[in-house]
Amino acid sequence: MAKSDHKAREQRILDAAAELFAHYGYDKTAVSDIAREAGVSQGGIYLHFDSKEALFEALLIREMRTYAESWLQRLDADPKGGTIAGMYRTMLYALNASPFMTAMFRQDRRVFGSYLRKPGNFFQHFQGGGRPSPRFEFVQLMQEAGAIRQDLNPKVVTHIMNMLAYGLVAMDEVVPAEEIPPMEDLIEGIADFMDRALTPDDGGNQEAGKAIIRQISDAARQQFEHMSHPVREE
Amino acid sequence: MAKSDHKAREQRILDAAAELFAHYGYDKTAVSDIAREAGVSQGGIYLHFDSKEALFEALLIREMRTYAESWLQRLDADPKGGTIAGMYRTMLYALNASPFMTAMFRQDRRVFGSYLRKPGNFFQHFQGGGRPSPRFEFVQLMQEAGAIRQDLNPKVVTHIMNMLAYGLVAMDEVVPAEEIPPMEDLIEGIADFMDRALTPDDGGNQEAGKAIIRQISDAARQQFEHMSHPVREE
Repeated sequence: MAKSDHKAREQRILDAAAELFAHYGYDKTAVSDIAREAGVSQGGIYLHFDSKEALFEALLIREMRTYAESWLQRLDADPKGGTIAGMYRTMLYALNASPFMTAMFRQDRRVFGSYLRKPGNFFQHFQGGGRPSPRFEFVQLMQEAGAIRQDLNPKVVTHIMNMLAYGLVAMDEVVPAEEIPPMEDLIEGIADFMDRALTPDDGGNQEAGKAIIRQISDAARQQFEHMSHPVREE
Repeated sequence: MAKSDHKAREQRILDAAAELFAHYGYDKTAVSDIAREAGVSQGGIYLHFDSKEALFEALLIREMRTYAESWLQRLDADPKGGTIAGMYRTMLYALNASPFMTAMFRQDRRVFGSYLRKPGNFFQHFQGGGRPSPRFEFVQLMQEAGAIRQDLNPKVVTHIMNMLAYGLVAMDEVVPAEEIPPMEDLIEGIADFMDRALTPDDGGNQEAGKAIIRQISDAARQQFEHMSHPVREE
């Protein structure tokens, strides 16, 4: 098979998988279901992915990469992209635009099912293990560069940022729908909060902030390249 | 039975119930378990409460009242009690001091179990039904009085406040323990965020803020009195 056909079929499988995993969840989606939805034989799937788990992880990586690209594009287009508010606003819009990333962020039990209990899973790769989280390192860099107030505890800032991002995707479980503002109003409101709370009193160093955000997103992009699952070429 | 004995026994039953409900949850705690823990006959329980549900609701009301009193006391003692940060800081400390309120806030499925699905339950009483939430009314009053910035959308402010309070009790489900800052640092950090984000640029009207907080807490206290379950006096 030509390499381009191989790639195209892989994307078709991942598209089918995204729809089925998001709708029925990890546990209730079989490889045979994905094959049927993608119009591929079950054996055809195994030419691309060793297991349902490997397919799922490839999908997670693809969706994270798309999310990161979408964030970067929004950041480039935003005149306030170098401020913490601009950074946060664009991140939340990108997060909200991806149903799969939203599910990842809330570690949705229905979508992820038993995958969350697998040792060495994708989430454990990013979390814990004694290493500081990438978000924490980001806050520290921004503080060193003068783009975030230096009198704040970076662990607390990181946690509050996580709380606000988590709340964006999870509050519908605890608050009645009519109390939740339109997503756009909420994202702008959160960005305004972050801006007032985190920006140094002198306005901060916007250019340094933008450089750090770019540096981190480039590093993330490279990490995604390395994380791509091994594709068997024919 | 003397009225004081009756009251004392009721409190003993509620103490036993608080421990069992928090530990085993609503569904797995039987009235007979509570009777045994309280050293009362099962019939003795029914002298005070018509049903497990009524007992549970009486407990919720008692715990909410204790929480409100604890909040008020902290507010009185805080020199910055009239600012939004002082208000929020004292509320979060009071919330954090009450395991039962914490469970209520996250609507903990393990603790509340099938109670959450009962029509007309305690939570539905407070939420939805088309009425604006008490928190939303509070934000609006504070804005009118000049204690919160008037250019902000009150629905968005209310929701962000809810996100931060919810995150305080629920983030342990999605973030590894070592990334969560000590509770006191986090509460102080959130208060600082709220202060910078919400206080008008001229510093706001602290006295008006304090008066509103007092007015609302008095109203809440009266509501709790009315909500007390009917006690059969002998």
